[in-house]
Amino acid sequence: MINPFFNNNGPFKISDILQLINFVDLKIINDHNINDIKDLFASEKNDITFLHSKKYRDIAKNTKASFCITTESLKDELPKSCTPLVVDNVLVSTSKVTSKFYPSSINDNFDSTAKEITETKFKDKVKFGRNVLIGNNVTIGSNCLIGHNTIIEQNVSIGDNCSIGSNVIIRNTLINNNVTVLDSCVIGKHGFGFFPINKKNLRYPHIGIVIIGENSEIGCSSTIDRGSMSNTVIGKNTYLDNQIHIAHNVKIGENSIIAGQVGIAGSSIIGNNARIGGQAGISGHLTIGNNVEIAGGSGVIKDISDNSKVMGYPAKNIREFLKDNK
Amino acid sequence: MINPFFNNNGPFKISDILQLINFVDLKIINDHNINDIKDLFASEKNDITFLHSKKYRDIAKNTKASFCITTESLKDELPKSCTPLVVDNVLVSTSKVTSKFYPSSINDNFDSTAKEITETKFKDKVKFGRNVLIGNNVTIGSNCLIGHNTIIEQNVSIGDNCSIGSNVIIRNTLINNNVTVLDSCVIGKHGFGFFPINKKNLRYPHIGIVIIGENSEIGCSSTIDRGSMSNTVIGKNTYLDNQIHIAHNVKIGENSIIAGQVGIAGSSIIGNNARIGGQAGISGHLTIGNNVEIAGGSGVIKDISDNSKVMGYPAKNIREFLKDNK
Amino acid sequence: MINPFFNNNGPFKISDILQLINFVDLKIINDHNINDIKDLFASEKNDITFLHSKKYRDIAKNTKASFCITTESLKDELPKSCTPLVVDNVLVSTSKVTSKFYPSSINDNFDSTAKEITETKFKDKVKFGRNVLIGNNVTIGSNCLIGHNTIIEQNVSIGDNCSIGSNVIIRNTLINNNVTVLDSCVIGKHGFGFFPINKKNLRYPHIGIVIIGENSEIGCSSTIDRGSMSNTVIGKNTYLDNQIHIAHNVKIGENSIIAGQVGIAGSSIIGNNARIGGQAGISGHLTIGNNVEIAGGSGVIKDISDNSKVMGYPAKNIREFLKDNK
Repeated sequence: MINPFFNNNGPFKISDILQLINFVDLKIINDHNINDIKDLFASEKNDITFLHSKKYRDIAKNTKASFCITTESLKDELPKSCTPLVVDNVLVSTSKVTSKFYPSSINDNFDSTAKEITETKFKDKVKFGRNVLIGNNVTIGSNCLIGHNTIIEQNVSIGDNCSIGSNVIIRNTLINNNVTVLDSCVIGKHGFGFFPINKKNLRYPHIGIVIIGENSEIGCSSTIDRGSMSNTVIGKNTYLDNQIHIAHNVKIGENSIIAGQVGIAGSSIIGNNARIGGQAGISGHLTIGNNVEIAGGSGVIKDISDNSKVMGYPAKNIREFLKDNK
Repeated sequence: MINPFFNNNGPFKISDILQLINFVDLKIINDHNINDIKDLFASEKNDITFLHSKKYRDIAKNTKASFCITTESLKDELPKSCTPLVVDNVLVSTSKVTSKFYPSSINDNFDSTAKEITETKFKDKVKFGRNVLIGNNVTIGSNCLIGHNTIIEQNVSIGDNCSIGSNVIIRNTLINNNVTVLDSCVIGKHGFGFFPINKKNLRYPHIGIVIIGENSEIGCSSTIDRGSMSNTVIGKNTYLDNQIHIAHNVKIGENSIIAGQVGIAGSSIIGNNARIGGQAGISGHLTIGNNVEIAGGSGVIKDISDNSKVMGYPAKNIREFLKDNK
Repeated sequence: MINPFFNNNGPFKISDILQLINFVDLKIINDHNINDIKDLFASEKNDITFLHSKKYRDIAKNTKASFCITTESLKDELPKSCTPLVVDNVLVSTSKVTSKFYPSSINDNFDSTAKEITETKFKDKVKFGRNVLIGNNVTIGSNCLIGHNTIIEQNVSIGDNCSIGSNVIIRNTLINNNVTVLDSCVIGKHGFGFFPINKKNLRYPHIGIVIIGENSEIGCSSTIDRGSMSNTVIGKNTYLDNQIHIAHNVKIGENSIIAGQVGIAGSSIIGNNARIGGQAGISGHLTIGNNVEIAGGSGVIKDISDNSKVMGYPAKNIREFLKDNK
């Protein structure tokens, strides 16, 4: 379940979807409804999906989607039940279709549904500061604190015993029990994802959310962006220090400790028990194993296997680094 | 036009200005009025200007200013119509004179003119959140959104179709059409510029502004400082990610993409179509050409020519860097 | 005096303290009161202290504390007047005892005592913006400014002629005269200090404060954490740029200049007249001398002696670095 929060505006006729992506080659025999756009694995019959990389060939073979936006070279990977829609740019076309189903997931304008907590059902349930705002579709568990000037925008679920600081902004986020979010964080904003086009870039939708595991803590002035087609996840009992930036689709395991000013770029996956020193940076689309130590200030640009200790830029084995830099 | 916003408290008698900079050597024949302080190029007759580096010799020869604060070794570069005022420290003296003309440009105390948007003419024109404040001398175009708790302080002009997030603070800034500013940014504050003096530093005035080109986007929790004697400029269709710091006088070209936590130090100039990876840092007073790629985490300490790809600290050709660090 | 602000909930009977740390070996002859927990140097008779490292042997010999939490190997360093309490983990036991004396120093929930400044005694004394909140136990000198939406939480003392920006959060902090704090800072939060325990980390108390010396300036969106058992100190006339992170127990000297996005990890000590370039990082528990220059982007991982200029990661002599990287 990757989009529990965003409203699906569908179903849409397949003919409308084809027109949207300038797809004119297909003769439509039965103009039936398409219910949703999902990834290859999650798609059901009468959904549309997308395939843009050989990496996903094996999943593609078993997709249940009825249609798939893809390329000439990948179209034969799909099962017979799935009609390929061959386009020039899979991601741009997918973005257009996703935007049609989930128009509210593209821009992050301020939430005009938010009202004073004193005007909501939470006024007797939550201990709150001055000037707290709550948007539509918010749930808050028992024994929670919400600080001054904090804005809980639309689509937020907060568990029990959570402490949210002051001047915080949260949207499109699922917070489990016993989580602390310190002052001035911004959580759940769309990621830095768009197609660069001269004169005017094209933003792509972000229908993923942020999930924060129980017993975790997020330091002051940190930013955690929500996912595009998957979620951004902070594992249980993982502590983030101040001024950390976690980009869209990042997944961090449990019991990890991440020091101040660390940045993790989009779609990277960090295992359990990570120890990441201050100001370290991790490039996008990497896989970092379990029990990994990354020294402060390091720049990680390739995958790291379990139990490794790395340092430097590009980060390498810490003993090697220290020997080379004596 | 570098100071459309700051009130010029002049004109002042030249005798008052000379006294301010402890200049006693000049016999004043005609104590006429000085209208303004400007750079060598922008100065008109009856303005005062300054010349502190050989780099500006050619412009100095053609200045129309009536007076110029300068040094013994540079005073002969000026035309006859411009009286040189030779001082020990050109920048300190220039700072004192600028402070006299523009006293409000030195400190960035909170804007006490700001009032609830509901008390202003914008209340029917702008879609706004709770607790939005608007200062004096603000204009806002059509179809704009301003989020909760956002403070538009004095001297801000916002174009059409702009979306400003929540908890944002903006002052001394010109925002063009279709710009998005995400949550918790601080834009238009004075830069980190002062003369270090034991016991009590001397701040110098910042009479420049911030200009953000159309179709651009500024990520959450970013800070963009205004210029001192020139402006800080973000080009059209340039996207900044979260937690970026842009120092005073920086100019970034069009169609550029700058990832999270990047920092650009004062007065550096970046061309069009830049691609700058997360956490990269660029030193001050550099010139980066067009179509340059800077890898995440790099530290750039010298100029970079057009179409280069660099990586490392100090940043060098990316192929060379990767070969050296295999 | 390290904890002028936190309420001491003691005294407690020594038998209660022993039970808290599962200490069963000691036969209590006289179950007298323990007044406070302090470091070895500050302790008085009837206080409890702790000794966890050989580094503090000399101070231990002269402590006036009546009890000391320590290890088997260190217990003989104490004077006869001080009864050693040998435990498995000195810091965990110390943390438990400190938490008993100072329970409010563990979590940083929002300050529910804060009220609108217009409801306080400061309403005629301070020049303030909209929606300013003031907590209990706050003092503010003459001629101060406090910007919009700023929250001065409990335990803050502000001197004369200070300018606090908008959207700032301050707690447990002593600000001297003529200090400027720019917009969106968070000052005085507890540090990133806890004992990592699977499933649920154990936070340790932070009974130190933040002290900001006179004539200093703190840039926008910076975070300064308060100390754990000592204070975090910014010296006189020291200027911090935007987006800087200062961790707990750090001490920075006078007349220092620290550029944007610098991070200083816990317990490091920086001398006077430091010059630290943008994005530089300093590891924890280091000693940096006086008159040191650290180039932007450097990563400092060992002590630096007076008058040094360093660059690189790991930071080394700047000439050497530039020669090696030509």
